[in-house]
Amino acid sequence: MMDKLRQHIERIVALTDEEFAFIARHFSSRKYKKHQYIIQEGDEVKYHYFILKGLTKLVYTDDTAKEHIVSFAMEDWWESDFLAFYTQTKATMALICLEDTEVLCLNLEDYKKLCDGLQKMERFILEKANFGFLGAQRRIISLLTSNAKERYEQLIKLYPNLVQRVPKAQLAAYLGVSRETLSRLNQ
Amino acid sequence: MMDKLRQHIERIVALTDEEFAFIARHFSSRKYKKHQYIIQEGDEVKYHYFILKGLTKLVYTDDTAKEHIVSFAMEDWWESDFLAFYTQTKATMALICLEDTEVLCLNLEDYKKLCDGLQKMERFILEKANFGFLGAQRRIISLLTSNAKERYEQLIKLYPNLVQRVPKAQLAAYLGVSRETLSRLNQ
Repeated sequence: MMDKLRQHIERIVALTDEEFAFIARHFSSRKYKKHQYIIQEGDEVKYHYFILKGLTKLVYTDDTAKEHIVSFAMEDWWESDFLAFYTQTKATMALICLEDTEVLCLNLEDYKKLCDGLQKMERFILEKANFGFLGAQRRIISLLTSNAKERYEQLIKLYPNLVQRVPKAQLAAYLGVSRETLSRLNQ
Repeated sequence: MMDKLRQHIERIVALTDEEFAFIARHFSSRKYKKHQYIIQEGDEVKYHYFILKGLTKLVYTDDTAKEHIVSFAMEDWWESDFLAFYTQTKATMALICLEDTEVLCLNLEDYKKLCDGLQKMERFILEKANFGFLGAQRRIISLLTSNAKERYEQLIKLYPNLVQRVPKAQLAAYLGVSRETLSRLNQ
């Protein structure tokens, strides 16, 4: 199980066995069933999650109780309500499993210990943060410039595996269109 | 001029004089006039920019030649076409001065040297990257959930100084509304 984490980190920085043993000590693992909440709105957000297996959605619910999908995450992705995690405030979003999901959990104290104790880990986290920022910026540009059909095509191009696994109703919510509209786009 | 950079970094990590001297050696400075392009679409993107003074807009131009403002940046903010910078590909966005602007420039090689040579600098850059990601995620949520009036109000609340300085036509472009609509929101 930890092998997957090591492979994932070693795509960015090479590790000795000692270094990986140090890293692994800071993670704990958890399993969730499909439909289960990993984070509920209003919760304390204790962890940054590395997804070993499964698929999640990060959901923001607006004042009219409408759900908006901020992001999906699957194997080898990191996910959390990061604002709540970093600032130790209550969750403003929910993280929900779309499949049975296994995660590795890193709390804020251990996150800091890892960064302090091993510069390679900080490098790895920085690369992931930059990658996350670029993904978010791409989504902003997509929301600013494209209609639902174009956004759907971009999503298929960038994340073909994701699109196949995500239920159609969830994809429609992510794109901000009705299920019927998505069926039309899909033809 | 470098004092501002030091103050900015020391909000996150304390530095000795030697450490700051090491950091300062990696930056060069440049001045631009209002309306000047810091980055033009199709350019190589050599630098990550720290804005000492002034105001910029990062612009994405779509296939129909319509301009979309991805972000504004002003004093103490970092800006670039980050995807092009990190991947050393051609710019897909333009970075344009809305006021006379002074920047400090950091190229990719020096960015890496700074991260390798001084873990405090890597920590600082990681904090900024996380902050950037959270800002981008907030903008995504805003685009998903809010109409132009609400987005305008959120912008005023988060960045009151920015809203005062940005020309109304530019604010309208950022919000994705016409100038006339913005005037109505403004009443």
